[in-house]
Amino acid sequence: MTGSAYDALHARFNRLGTIEEALAILSWDYATMMPKGGANARGEQMSVLQVIAHQQLTAPDLEDLFGRAAMEGGRDVWAEANLAAMNRQWRKAIAVPADLVAALAKATLECEMIWRQARPDNDYPAVRPALSELLNLTLQAGQAKADAFGLGLYDALLDDYEPGGRSAHIDTLFAELAGFLPDLINTAIEHQAKEPAPIQPQGPFPIVRQRELADRMMRALGFDFGHGRLDVSAHPFSGGIPDDVRITTRYEEGLFSRSLMGVLHETGHALYEQGLPAAWRRQPVGVARGMSMHESQSLMVEMQACRSAEFMQFLAPVAREVFGGEGAAWEPENLHRLETRVRRGLIRVDADEVTYPAHVVLRYRLERAIIQGELGLDDLPGAWRDGMKELVGSVPETDREGCLQDIHWYSGSWGYFPTYTLGAMTAAQLFDAAKRAVPSIPGDLAKGDFSNLLGWLRTHIHGRASSVPGEVIVKEATGAPLGTSVFRQHLERRYLGRT
Amino acid sequence: MTGSAYDALHARFNRLGTIEEALAILSWDYATMMPKGGANARGEQMSVLQVIAHQQLTAPDLEDLFGRAAMEGGRDVWAEANLAAMNRQWRKAIAVPADLVAALAKATLECEMIWRQARPDNDYPAVRPALSELLNLTLQAGQAKADAFGLGLYDALLDDYEPGGRSAHIDTLFAELAGFLPDLINTAIEHQAKEPAPIQPQGPFPIVRQRELADRMMRALGFDFGHGRLDVSAHPFSGGIPDDVRITTRYEEGLFSRSLMGVLHETGHALYEQGLPAAWRRQPVGVARGMSMHESQSLMVEMQACRSAEFMQFLAPVAREVFGGEGAAWEPENLHRLETRVRRGLIRVDADEVTYPAHVVLRYRLERAIIQGELGLDDLPGAWRDGMKELVGSVPETDREGCLQDIHWYSGSWGYFPTYTLGAMTAAQLFDAAKRAVPSIPGDLAKGDFSNLLGWLRTHIHGRASSVPGEVIVKEATGAPLGTSVFRQHLERRYLGRT
Repeated sequence: MTGSAYDALHARFNRLGTIEEALAILSWDYATMMPKGGANARGEQMSVLQVIAHQQLTAPDLEDLFGRAAMEGGRDVWAEANLAAMNRQWRKAIAVPADLVAALAKATLECEMIWRQARPDNDYPAVRPALSELLNLTLQAGQAKADAFGLGLYDALLDDYEPGGRSAHIDTLFAELAGFLPDLINTAIEHQAKEPAPIQPQGPFPIVRQRELADRMMRALGFDFGHGRLDVSAHPFSGGIPDDVRITTRYEEGLFSRSLMGVLHETGHALYEQGLPAAWRRQPVGVARGMSMHESQSLMVEMQACRSAEFMQFLAPVAREVFGGEGAAWEPENLHRLETRVRRGLIRVDADEVTYPAHVVLRYRLERAIIQGELGLDDLPGAWRDGMKELVGSVPETDREGCLQDIHWYSGSWGYFPTYTLGAMTAAQLFDAAKRAVPSIPGDLAKGDFSNLLGWLRTHIHGRASSVPGEVIVKEATGAPLGTSVFRQHLERRYLGRT
Repeated sequence: MTGSAYDALHARFNRLGTIEEALAILSWDYATMMPKGGANARGEQMSVLQVIAHQQLTAPDLEDLFGRAAMEGGRDVWAEANLAAMNRQWRKAIAVPADLVAALAKATLECEMIWRQARPDNDYPAVRPALSELLNLTLQAGQAKADAFGLGLYDALLDDYEPGGRSAHIDTLFAELAGFLPDLINTAIEHQAKEPAPIQPQGPFPIVRQRELADRMMRALGFDFGHGRLDVSAHPFSGGIPDDVRITTRYEEGLFSRSLMGVLHETGHALYEQGLPAAWRRQPVGVARGMSMHESQSLMVEMQACRSAEFMQFLAPVAREVFGGEGAAWEPENLHRLETRVRRGLIRVDADEVTYPAHVVLRYRLERAIIQGELGLDDLPGAWRDGMKELVGSVPETDREGCLQDIHWYSGSWGYFPTYTLGAMTAAQLFDAAKRAVPSIPGDLAKGDFSNLLGWLRTHIHGRASSVPGEVIVKEATGAPLGTSVFRQHLERRYLGRT
């Protein structure tokens, strides 16, 4: 198809994807390596590359290329899906006027900066005007996309994180969660109170040893250090590019498990990126299928596989050896109890597997209500407290531990939150399907052998990239559309001891 | 001057400079952090950004902007120099046809790749065809620039590294060097043979301790860690950007001085970058004034200041403390003798201060002869051996230790070599002037106090950036044009004990 309009688009999106790759590395460096004095220059570098990327995506001749490509034949299904994904990305980009894009970028920077001070100051009123301005611009951009695609306003925002996701479906799923979670949290806490209290292994755990343990676990999971790194940053993340995945963690000398579980989580993200098809690098069809699928891969590794009783059989002796630990605290059963402890916490990022979805349901409800104009920003702190009481059973005394805790809204990410819990549900459903397909998986994990699990994920998830909608991937991999029942069963088995 | 053509150019070059900054960080990451598997993607990223930068610099409307800016008044001397430097950069870029730029980039990659294997294989014939092709394209591009600027061919190539540099002047200076260096090398070796033989401190020197020593020395020199880092790479370099300078070293457990002296050298480069005027970031007038001035700053720190007997008074006790050393090897006088030892080596990068310029004179002679068509590439290995015999007094038995040792020609850098020794001469002349202006400097160095020296450099070199020609900077800072006499005096004092 040399010389075709599709080929020309392929080259354009390759260039666009390459600029985005450069941005990903610069962003990683910003968070891990850059001295403070480099921040202003880095801001300029990233802003200029973002402008250039936007110019590539809104070049005037793309309309003609898309028109001609639509008339061409002979594309296979991947190329067809790629063309559709390119077209979608382009239509989104041209839907939002350039001056709105610029205003949004500026308002995001300002609001985020004010939030960084307002959170430690516990001063929601200080950031409320900037949040209001940012929300207003976000809704304008969302409405422009909603109009272009015939979507509702929330769905247009959601679509940036969850392509093809619909709030009507999330409403149903989250109503089910809200129906059983508060009881399940109560029962799990009561159930665990009757078990032996877990014993915390005593440190210090030298950082160099923690790094060694992380390295060994990452290798066991199948992380390819020829195409990635592990470093340190204030807020752990998975970044970089599929050929060079950069994950980070943060070490505390007094507690090794928080960093370790974080590393396992980010490794799940990284394995997805490393498993994307090399033939479609930098093309829209070749990227991961949205945030909920991404989160399903991190939670598959962290929650489903690595907090299982089986995995603890493998982890416990290795960790004991690395740290020179002794005694009952290092028994697999104890580590398992420690790493599956349910608590009515106030902070989402510290939440356990059972309360976490309740945190997310709250945020989803609130952002839906705000976006639909049913809840004003002045009423957010109170609505937060009410929702926490209902869903988690604990109430924050400060906004710092309440509606100021998460960066998302203050950086313009409205419509992101539900993907965390959609990911958790997807992970449960995929892990269940993988075990049905390969019954040896739990036993494999007890030996630290992830090859069967990873192989299944490579075939059913990673290798498919964005070639079909996420719901098709889930249905074909598990035999059923995404629902809450397998997730609920998983929670009841692990936290209530039901089999 | 809002809305002026000059302002528009300023904005264009700001964007161009920002892209170049992004490239600098990506290039640093490539050499320090990137896993091997990221190389292909990184190559694409850098190539795309280079193409975009070239498009910025050759945009069709620049000609009109330069025409209009020439008619505008009211610019101060810096803005005037900036406009001239922009114009020069633009004329250079448009002088070379786009297809030649592309062919040159391709030939450079190929030749460099073949050289990377040919050097360890000691196989000059294997790389000669690729070198011939690359040279041919380099000369075509050089001729295009020579025609555009009315320069000779060698001077057009030199100009990329040494703006305004002229081979007629270098011919004179290097003829003087060639006149006294062979004798000086002989006499220095004889002189040192009569002194006590230096004692090598015995390791191992743990890398973490070497890093600590490097850190302490960099801080003493005035390196700002809020705007820079020290890392590890296979080939040490100074990279990054003025607001975020990234220098590197390579540690050997058995020998601390090689890494330390390298760090001091790169710190000299870094201090220059950190001292450039912040008001002119990313503008052509705000960058360092060519490679010889840059090398003068690294050699000022490494050779003039830090290999002095005075500095060793400061270094010796600190190094002894860091490594827990004992005995005569750690006496300042012994370390000074060790770090100023003259040897007839074969390898430029390992050469001492006295033989180094002889290596450079040889390379300059050879590249001049090749470029002028007086020496064919087939005759290069023999001419190399003859020149080594004459200038250094030692002859390589293999091309690996001969004409294959340096990457420069094999990566298309013809006209670069003389800047090393112009830098060494400049460093000697500047250090002499600084000591005349601030007589306490030698005593300061013995106490590890670099503030007076750095202050003098900030005023006379760093802060001037590219606002005037390099020869003006040297003349105004030292009271005389660049010559060989102060350099010769310095060598005779240090290596022959003449006062």
